[in-house]
Amino acid sequence: MRHDGRSLARAGTRLTLITSTTGPRPADFNDVRATNLAVVLRFVRENAPCSRADIAASTGLNKATVSSLVADLIERRLVRETGLTENRVGRPATMLVLDGSPYAAAGIEVNVDGLTVVAVDLSGRQVLTLRKSFPGVGASASQAVAAVAALARRTVNRMVREERRVLGLVVAVPGLVGVEGRVRFAPNLNWHDVDLAHDLAAALRDPEFPIQVDNDANLGALAEHRFGPYGGAGNLVYLTGEVGVGAGVIVDGRLLRGGQGFSGELGHVQVDPAGPRCGCGRLGCLEAVAGIGAVFGRFSDGGPTVSPAVVAPEIDEVVRLARAGDRATLAVLADIGGSLGKGVAILANLLNPQAVVLGGHYVPLAPWLIPAAEAEARVRTIAPDAGGCRIVASTLGYGAAALGGAARVLDSIESGRLPARP
Amino acid sequence: MRHDGRSLARAGTRLTLITSTTGPRPADFNDVRATNLAVVLRFVRENAPCSRADIAASTGLNKATVSSLVADLIERRLVRETGLTENRVGRPATMLVLDGSPYAAAGIEVNVDGLTVVAVDLSGRQVLTLRKSFPGVGASASQAVAAVAALARRTVNRMVREERRVLGLVVAVPGLVGVEGRVRFAPNLNWHDVDLAHDLAAALRDPEFPIQVDNDANLGALAEHRFGPYGGAGNLVYLTGEVGVGAGVIVDGRLLRGGQGFSGELGHVQVDPAGPRCGCGRLGCLEAVAGIGAVFGRFSDGGPTVSPAVVAPEIDEVVRLARAGDRATLAVLADIGGSLGKGVAILANLLNPQAVVLGGHYVPLAPWLIPAAEAEARVRTIAPDAGGCRIVASTLGYGAAALGGAARVLDSIESGRLPARP
Repeated sequence: MRHDGRSLARAGTRLTLITSTTGPRPADFNDVRATNLAVVLRFVRENAPCSRADIAASTGLNKATVSSLVADLIERRLVRETGLTENRVGRPATMLVLDGSPYAAAGIEVNVDGLTVVAVDLSGRQVLTLRKSFPGVGASASQAVAAVAALARRTVNRMVREERRVLGLVVAVPGLVGVEGRVRFAPNLNWHDVDLAHDLAAALRDPEFPIQVDNDANLGALAEHRFGPYGGAGNLVYLTGEVGVGAGVIVDGRLLRGGQGFSGELGHVQVDPAGPRCGCGRLGCLEAVAGIGAVFGRFSDGGPTVSPAVVAPEIDEVVRLARAGDRATLAVLADIGGSLGKGVAILANLLNPQAVVLGGHYVPLAPWLIPAAEAEARVRTIAPDAGGCRIVASTLGYGAAALGGAARVLDSIESGRLPARP
Repeated sequence: MRHDGRSLARAGTRLTLITSTTGPRPADFNDVRATNLAVVLRFVRENAPCSRADIAASTGLNKATVSSLVADLIERRLVRETGLTENRVGRPATMLVLDGSPYAAAGIEVNVDGLTVVAVDLSGRQVLTLRKSFPGVGASASQAVAAVAALARRTVNRMVREERRVLGLVVAVPGLVGVEGRVRFAPNLNWHDVDLAHDLAAALRDPEFPIQVDNDANLGALAEHRFGPYGGAGNLVYLTGEVGVGAGVIVDGRLLRGGQGFSGELGHVQVDPAGPRCGCGRLGCLEAVAGIGAVFGRFSDGGPTVSPAVVAPEIDEVVRLARAGDRATLAVLADIGGSLGKGVAILANLLNPQAVVLGGHYVPLAPWLIPAAEAEARVRTIAPDAGGCRIVASTLGYGAAALGGAARVLDSIESGRLPARP
C-alpha cells in the first residue's frame, strides 16, 4: 500500500511529511503513512512503556491519527499493549511496548577465519548467535557463497522453528563494497568483483526477505551506534581489529559512506613510509604497522606470519605474557599502540569524533594498546586533548559486524520498510 | 510567533512535521509553520519560476496551506509574483520567484594578509565585495576585532543606503573554532581563546542581526556546496590554500563538524615524518610540505619565508616562471603537488569524496599542482581511480570563505529562521 503526499492531501488526511534536512523532494513523500508508522514504532522502542497520548504529545501527530497508526502496528505484531498504568495524573492509560516476537533480523559476518551469524528480535535482543570456522583465505568466492548460504539457511530454519519471520539479512565483508552492494575487492579474502547479494539470493532460491552486503567496519559502526555504550555519541569511529583494519565512521548519527561507498579505508593510509609492506602492496599502511597481522609479525621476528585460523589462541598467549609483565611483549604492544595512535590522530584531526571504538582482536589487547595509542594521538592532534576523542574497547564481542548487519535491518524497518500484515 | 506541533494539532491545522532522519523529537516541532515557510522558500529558490500548484504537488502540502504560506512569504518580501504563464496545460498560473531585494547576508573572512567582505541577496547574487589589507600576523586580537568591526559597520551602512536589511554576519577565521563559536586557537594569526562573536557584537553595539564565527575551510566548503560547480556532489572537500591548509568536509550534503567543532584539520596530519617543521611545532604536517608557505620556503632555498602580505605578487611570479617552462619551478610545483596528493589520498581513503576543491592561493597554481596531486592520490588510494575523486580548482575566487559566511546565513534562513515581517 503506497501513497504519495499529494494523494493524501487530496483525500483530506492530516498527514504531511516535510523534512527540514532534505527539503521538499518528491521521493520523500512516497509513503507518508509508512513513515509515520515507523516514527511511532521508533518512539515506542525509545520510550516504552508509553501511552498513545505520550506519542501524540511528542510527535505532533493528532490523537486520532496515533490511534490508527498504533492499531496498524498492533495488527502487524510490532507493538503490543501491556496493561494499564495508574501512576499518572488523569485517567489511567493503556501502555504500549515493542512486540516483534514473530520477527527476526539477521547479520552474517564473513571473516578470514570464520563466519558469525547473529539474529535479533525487534528490540535488539539476540535470539541466535553462531560462530562457524571457515577457511576464508583458502576458499574460492563460490565456496564462500555456498558456506554463507548454508549458514543463512540454517538461520532461517531455526527462526521458522521459533515461529519468527526473517525480515532481512545483511552480510558483512572485509573489503570494498560499492553503494549498490557488490564486493569490488576484498584483499584478505582474495575476492575480486563478487556479486555476493545476487549469488546468495540465487543459492537461497530468492527468499522473501531482502539480502544486502556491506563493509564489515560500516556494520560494526552501526552496531556500536545502536547497541554500544558510546551509541549516544553522534560522532564515532569503529575500527575493526581483524587481519585487516577498517574504519566505520558515524557522523551526526549517520553512517558516512562517501560518493561510491568506499569510505573508511584508514587501514591503507600510510602512517610510516619506512614501515613494512602491506598486503595491498603499499608501504607502511596502518594495517601493516598496527593490524593484528603486525602483532604476530613482530613476535615471530620476521618469520612466517601466524595463520589467521589460529589467531585467537595466539592472542590468548600474548595476553598471558602481557599480564605476566613480559618486557618484550609489553614493548611490542606499546609500539603497535603508538602506531594505532597515529591512525587515531588522523581521525581526530580530520573528523573530531567523540570516541574511537576498537573491535575484533584489538579488544583483548586493548588494556596495553590504548594508553600508548592515546598518548600518541594527543601529541599528533592539533585540538587540545585530541579534541576530546576517547579510545575505547568494544563491548560487543567478536560478532559486532554480524550484529551490525542485524542493526541495519532494524534501521531499515524503522525508516519505513515495515513488514506486511501477517 | 511560535507554535508547537501539539497546539497546532489541537487548533485543527493540517501541518504536521515529522522527519524520517531525526525521528520524533519534540524540539523538531517547535515551529512547524516557520519550517514549512522555509521549505516553500527553498523550493522557490531551486525551481523558480514556479506556481503555487507546483509547490503543492512537490511538497505534499495542500493547496490552501501553500497559498497561506506564499502570502506570508510575499508579505515578508522574500518571494514575489511575476506575471502569468500560458505555457502549460490548463489554466494559466501566476508564477513565483525569489524577491529578497530588501535583504542581505554578509560574510567576512579574516586572513593573515587581509579582510574580505561579501554580501549577497537572497538569491545569492553578490551585492558587495570588498578586500582590505590588514596585518593579520602583527595585529593583536583586539586590533583585529576593531578592524573587522569597522568593515562590518561599513558593510551595514552600505546596505542601509541600498535599503537592505542585514540578516546575519558570519566571520571566517583560519583556526580552531568551537561549536559555540569561540576561536580557541588560530596559529597563523597568533590568537588564543578569542570570543570574536561576543567582542564584535559589543563593538557593533549589539546589532539586530546575529553574528557568528566559523572556521574558514568550513565556510569555503559551504560556499562550494551552494554556489560552486561541484555543489551537486553530496560528498566534497574544500581545501584552503592560504598560509594554513584547512579542510571543510561536506558529507551527504551537510557540513561535518565533529564532536567539538574541530574537524577538518588535514593541514596538521603528518604526511612526511622527514619533512620540515610546521608552524604548529610538529614535523612534516601537510601544511608544512604543501601549504603556500612551502612554495616560498622552497623557492627561497631555506632562507626567510616570504611575508604573507606579499604572497599574491610572488604567486604571480611563480605562475610566470611555470608558464615559461622554468624547470626548477616546474619541479618544485610537481613536488608540492605530490605532497598535496598524499593529503588527498587520506581524504579519498577515509571519506571517498567525489571532489576535492582547491581554494585560495592554490587556484592560480592549480594547472601545475593538480596533475602531480592526482597521480599521487591514485597510487595511494585503495579504491580504483581514487574512488572517483577529482581534484579541481575553485572558481569562487579569493573570497570563498567570506561568500561561505553569507551562504551560512542563507542556510539558516532556509532552515526556518525567517526575517520578521517588515
